[in-house]
Amino acid sequence: MMKIANTPKPPYYAVIFTSLRTEAEENYESTADRMVELAMEQPGYLGHEFARSGLGVTVSYWDSLESIRNWKQHTEHLDAQEKGRETWYQAYKTRICLVERDYGFEAD
Amino acid sequence: MMKIANTPKPPYYAVIFTSLRTEAEENYESTADRMVELAMEQPGYLGHEFARSGLGVTVSYWDSLESIRNWKQHTEHLDAQEKGRETWYQAYKTRICLVERDYGFEAD
Repeated sequence: MMKIANTPKPPYYAVIFTSLRTEAEENYESTADRMVELAMEQPGYLGHEFARSGLGVTVSYWDSLESIRNWKQHTEHLDAQEKGRETWYQAYKTRICLVERDYGFEAD
Repeated sequence: MMKIANTPKPPYYAVIFTSLRTEAEENYESTADRMVELAMEQPGYLGHEFARSGLGVTVSYWDSLESIRNWKQHTEHLDAQEKGRETWYQAYKTRICLVERDYGFEAD
């Protein structure tokens, strides 16, 4: 079970990746797992959250635009992005955002 | 089936609401549906995306911080937020973000 990402005090960055899958499974799960593993090792990675129910919404959190750019250009990630467009995704949208404020709630 | 939100050219705002539910169902679905209906009627609403698989990730898009503030203070929404803390959510986090850049992909 995933958890709410334990991000630092704002400002920091969020990448919202919203996607619609095709029906092709071809290594999708293993590649997705590998991308999470790899993202977590990148400089500036702060956390991520994911859910899918029809639409998939992945949000990853980063310390700077430079970290986001480096992760986007990572060789293994570039291969996965290409395979995503060829095989796994019908459509996606990526939004690069500055998180200005956050607040939360936890039940006792 | 939900769609990827058709937002305008940046800059605009995103509210990322990540949540963990309790097991209490008590009007959750009907209230969630009503909140979507109501949000869509608010000035400055630009779209939303939602997925849940364990974690729930809802992103709503807005034209300004003022629109976000007004929606947060909407009477019916305030009631739902209170009920959320009392009944439906174990924990949640809300992040207010400025979307600086976006890009997308659609298969032919």
